[in-house]
Amino acid sequence: MNEFELIARLTKSLPTNQDVLVGVGDDCAVLDLGVPDKWLLFKTDAVVEGIHFTKVTPPESIGHKALARCLSDIAAMAGTPIAALVTLGLPEKFEPEFVGKIYGGMSALAQKYGVAIAGGETTANPERVFISIALLGTVTRGKQILRSGAKVGDAIFVTGELGGSRAGKHLEFEPRLAEARWLAEQFAIHAMIDLSDGLAGDLQHVLKASGVGAELLKRAVPVSRAARARERAGSSAKPAFAAALTEGEDFELLFTIAGSDAVKLLDAWPKRFPGLKLSCIGKIVTGGGVTIHDKTGSHQLTAHGYDHFAR
Amino acid sequence: MNEFELIARLTKSLPTNQDVLVGVGDDCAVLDLGVPDKWLLFKTDAVVEGIHFTKVTPPESIGHKALARCLSDIAAMAGTPIAALVTLGLPEKFEPEFVGKIYGGMSALAQKYGVAIAGGETTANPERVFISIALLGTVTRGKQILRSGAKVGDAIFVTGELGGSRAGKHLEFEPRLAEARWLAEQFAIHAMIDLSDGLAGDLQHVLKASGVGAELLKRAVPVSRAARARERAGSSAKPAFAAALTEGEDFELLFTIAGSDAVKLLDAWPKRFPGLKLSCIGKIVTGGGVTIHDKTGSHQLTAHGYDHFAR
Repeated sequence: MNEFELIARLTKSLPTNQDVLVGVGDDCAVLDLGVPDKWLLFKTDAVVEGIHFTKVTPPESIGHKALARCLSDIAAMAGTPIAALVTLGLPEKFEPEFVGKIYGGMSALAQKYGVAIAGGETTANPERVFISIALLGTVTRGKQILRSGAKVGDAIFVTGELGGSRAGKHLEFEPRLAEARWLAEQFAIHAMIDLSDGLAGDLQHVLKASGVGAELLKRAVPVSRAARARERAGSSAKPAFAAALTEGEDFELLFTIAGSDAVKLLDAWPKRFPGLKLSCIGKIVTGGGVTIHDKTGSHQLTAHGYDHFAR
Repeated sequence: MNEFELIARLTKSLPTNQDVLVGVGDDCAVLDLGVPDKWLLFKTDAVVEGIHFTKVTPPESIGHKALARCLSDIAAMAGTPIAALVTLGLPEKFEPEFVGKIYGGMSALAQKYGVAIAGGETTANPERVFISIALLGTVTRGKQILRSGAKVGDAIFVTGELGGSRAGKHLEFEPRLAEARWLAEQFAIHAMIDLSDGLAGDLQHVLKASGVGAELLKRAVPVSRAARARERAGSSAKPAFAAALTEGEDFELLFTIAGSDAVKLLDAWPKRFPGLKLSCIGKIVTGGGVTIHDKTGSHQLTAHGYDHFAR
């Protein structure tokens, strides 16, 4: 049983109430607490030593990553982050300076996006640093973008480049908050998600939630320089395209938009975000699952790994 | 450096914004997000295997305790809990049934208080179960009760009985939500906190935040049956009164109210909450620190342990 199956099983019958508009199963929970023009976004996310960072990761980067992951989920709903709370599980012996630098990395990022750090708690976690962040944000009433809105005929877009994030990007990425808000204001975005598990997995979340399928064009998928470099460096590395599909931690946006809006978007984007690539990688089709077209033909992405691409 | 000193040092210069009314240093953060008649309460709290529960604690009790601790903090502000998010750090090998029962304990408590569990996330924490809960609540605008409102001449009250919680209560306690809201509606409560660290420590939080001192009457402090039984059972146990002062995890309310309201409160309480003891344990005075009066005289509670009582 993997994480998704477990969560799906556990969270099937969780208690809810009238304030919750979207609960389990999207990037953030969405709540209506009576703010006249806004809905609330609510999210938690954790990073753990040995899994999301190592013993030698600079503490500022740990703090940055911990908060940036949550901000990326707010971005995926086209929201605005407001305030965060920090829960820090710490080994018994730690340097206050080390913890100070974790907070330093968080604070710098928080300040950049106008986010308050409204509280901090520490507890013991003897073997490794464990950081959980809770984040509260808002979104214009009715303007949140869910995973479930993809429509047949939509064009599928991703920002930035995918794969190879572990070479460094996963510690220093910028959450795509400005990009997501601009998209939501300027275009009718049908569905959106942030790429944390990898293009293959996250696209499937959108497809499942929307009850549709997707066709991708292999050569249109923006594979990162880091993933390409690693493929060239050694035969033991994943092929760069497989890395882009499956490695995860890209923290780019994946979204769908009516096919008829695609050209207008591709025209407007570089004027607004000249430094960030935007790629149309395929389209939404009927059915389910993902088909990938390359020069050798069409290949189905299966649930049991991605046998053709993701050796 | 203890937890409080560390937090105080780290959180001195955290970023804030106009939405945050109360940040670090109270039971919950208080935010104004524009709900016409309400402010938001925002809290996270963690429980960790080996610290807050053991390998043999029933998983339903782990779930209950994890959520109840957060609810107790919302109670301490006289608030109403709305929605929780659950972050679960799990060892690599775990029984889905075990995790299901943790969620079961949480869900039962959530349902009782109308709280939604609006999302759940799992991550790896190889050596032990680590649960962090984020909770969102509301409080009537301007009616939140802070730690900083205690005034000279106030009577100091506690609900329930203190000490010996580790014998069982810490796993099954009821958050004092109804009691706190009733108090806030019926009386002018000046300051309130929930007793998680122990009467001595938590009272000092109130005194520091309010810039006042306290005098306690030893015989008025409601010492639990569990703490008394343990004192009788063995000389190695803490004296029962010391247990009541310092053991913590009582999750009762401590609050202050004008001395002139004390009799009215003591009269009304048992009609509304016949099953729960309410004790007036002392009064707020000028200066700082805590003086305890017993039949041998007056004793100062010092910052370096509680030498007279808390061997």
